Amino acid sequence: MPSDDDISAEERLIARHFGPLATAPGAFGLHDDAAVVTPPPGCDLVLTTDGVIAGVHFFPDDPPGDVARKVLRMNLSDLAAKGARPVGFLMSIALPPGIGESWIAAFAEGLGEDAVHYGCPLLGGDTDHTPVSLSISITAFGAVPHGAMVRRSTAKVGDSVVVTGSIGDAALGVLLHKDAALAKNWRLSDGERDHLLRRYLLPQPRNALAAAVLKYASAAMDVSDGLAGDLKKLCRASGVGAEIDVARVPLSDAARAALSAEASLIETILTGGDDYELVLTLPPEKFAAFRAEAENAGVAATEIGRVTSGQGARFLKDGNALAFAQPSYSHF
Amino acid sequence: MPSDDDISAEERLIARHFGPLATAPGAFGLHDDAAVVTPPPGCDLVLTTDGVIAGVHFFPDDPPGDVARKVLRMNLSDLAAKGARPVGFLMSIALPPGIGESWIAAFAEGLGEDAVHYGCPLLGGDTDHTPVSLSISITAFGAVPHGAMVRRSTAKVGDSVVVTGSIGDAALGVLLHKDAALAKNWRLSDGERDHLLRRYLLPQPRNALAAAVLKYASAAMDVSDGLAGDLKKLCRASGVGAEIDVARVPLSDAARAALSAEASLIETILTGGDDYELVLTLPPEKFAAFRAEAENAGVAATEIGRVTSGQGARFLKDGNALAFAQPSYSHF
Repeated sequence: MPSDDDISAEERLIARHFGPLATAPGAFGLHDDAAVVTPPPGCDLVLTTDGVIAGVHFFPDDPPGDVARKVLRMNLSDLAAKGARPVGFLMSIALPPGIGESWIAAFAEGLGEDAVHYGCPLLGGDTDHTPVSLSISITAFGAVPHGAMVRRSTAKVGDSVVVTGSIGDAALGVLLHKDAALAKNWRLSDGERDHLLRRYLLPQPRNALAAAVLKYASAAMDVSDGLAGDLKKLCRASGVGAEIDVARVPLSDAARAALSAEASLIETILTGGDDYELVLTLPPEKFAAFRAEAENAGVAATEIGRVTSGQGARFLKDGNALAFAQPSYSHF
Repeated sequence: MPSDDDISAEERLIARHFGPLATAPGAFGLHDDAAVVTPPPGCDLVLTTDGVIAGVHFFPDDPPGDVARKVLRMNLSDLAAKGARPVGFLMSIALPPGIGESWIAAFAEGLGEDAVHYGCPLLGGDTDHTPVSLSISITAFGAVPHGAMVRRSTAKVGDSVVVTGSIGDAALGVLLHKDAALAKNWRLSDGERDHLLRRYLLPQPRNALAAAVLKYASAAMDVSDGLAGDLKKLCRASGVGAEIDVARVPLSDAARAALSAEASLIETILTGGDDYELVLTLPPEKFAAFRAEAENAGVAATEIGRVTSGQGARFLKDGNALAFAQPSYSHF
């Protein structure tokens, strides 16, 4: 073994904290410039990339382990929506001055827990310094049978529109994080408040449903930039429209409590980001089977509307289409 | 077609400038959350990721098209060193306020030219805003026959150590960029000065040699953090040492001129970064065949030393081992 003096600070950091996460044979223990992936026979590799920047996508005081898990889960959520089984991921991290090794250790610990939990090992990456904002970019890889990736552009007129879990929690959680007094205005219990904060801090990607998505969905994407905007993207890619019954959009008890205290929050709920649920379309006769498989995996699935001809996603409440000030969340 | 009002600023930007680069079928025209790659039959997919941050890896006044080409070429260089043929790439870009669309247009134009030239189309990516420094991260994919990726860790005692092209130009180019007066101190012609600046600005990755690397090399990596440091990494990974004859390290006429004006520049030449040449090891009897294939591709290949038992890479000049103040370039 070379002495410690012989190794750069970067190599030491990588070896100590990220080396143990590189359990795939193709990662070569992070001792090479590149990694290797061999998709299972007959499978395509699905690629997705998503990143976060401190102050833009997370708060600087968020726990480092949760930041790590969130950025990995953002990518896992994309794989779930495409019907893909996780294979592994690459990570680029740019560290600002003043980030201590304890931050990195906690970050790597959270990342490692999720890598094991979701069966998605670290394959390689790139560590660098940045003058200002910490940023992390992950590229995740998944496997689907050849030609079977579930796309955005293949929804059919007459399909049901389905969402998983509950919508709007994370967007309400961000508001609570910025202004703790809102919990009182919204008359939330401590448990309801914590639920919303937690949903913002740590997404629950629906990878347990990937096989069911692959089996039943005609089109799918994950809900990361708000249900209204993301469904609009799916409609546009498919050349269809959609009519959504707002009363059927699934809400958590906490979101329902906030909404009954402040009715205008319906816009935050439907257009806010960071849900990391799935929105999918499927032939109506397949919904019961999809819901049964989802419930077996402990996840709710709710039919919220129908794919129509025309264009745009209309959110109907008491027979009227809601108009949103900002239909899709955009970091621009 | 939806009206422009119907599309977010981000989607407009992507569609206009990056959409035309997404020529691979698996990119789905950038209209999906994910992309698909199917490696050629019998092939593994080689993965590598590398990025740049304004002010750290490039100067804010560098031409945007050259910045784009540099970050793609940094990744292409890794693929070349692994013996892999380019398949495509993903890109994450974080834009600070004040970046105009003309910057993005010029960036995309340079990127597109190289994507065509190197046969490496855009597969997908992620565009975001950052409060401060522009950053770009690319993940590139290549194909090698199953199990054949050329690694760092497989150099054998007795092998020749070979480098491509010339070493040290880019590191001298960075010094010139920071202090134009050095050109006079070093007594460079205008052509020599421009050569060094150009070598810093725009690497020439050796992808034309990937097939020869695959055929002949026992181990290889690209030289991006300085020859001395990178060769040391290769030696450590392989559990070997190396003895390099400094007089045989290939220098451009410009680097040779600078060195004769200022002998201490040998350290910059051997330890500075951004060469994007290849360093490889091979059985001595294979060198002539490798060199012939390299010269057919218009690239010089030079034998500079030998793999030894022991550890560390010793750079011998007039029989003495050079000692470097900072053996490997590290952004830390």
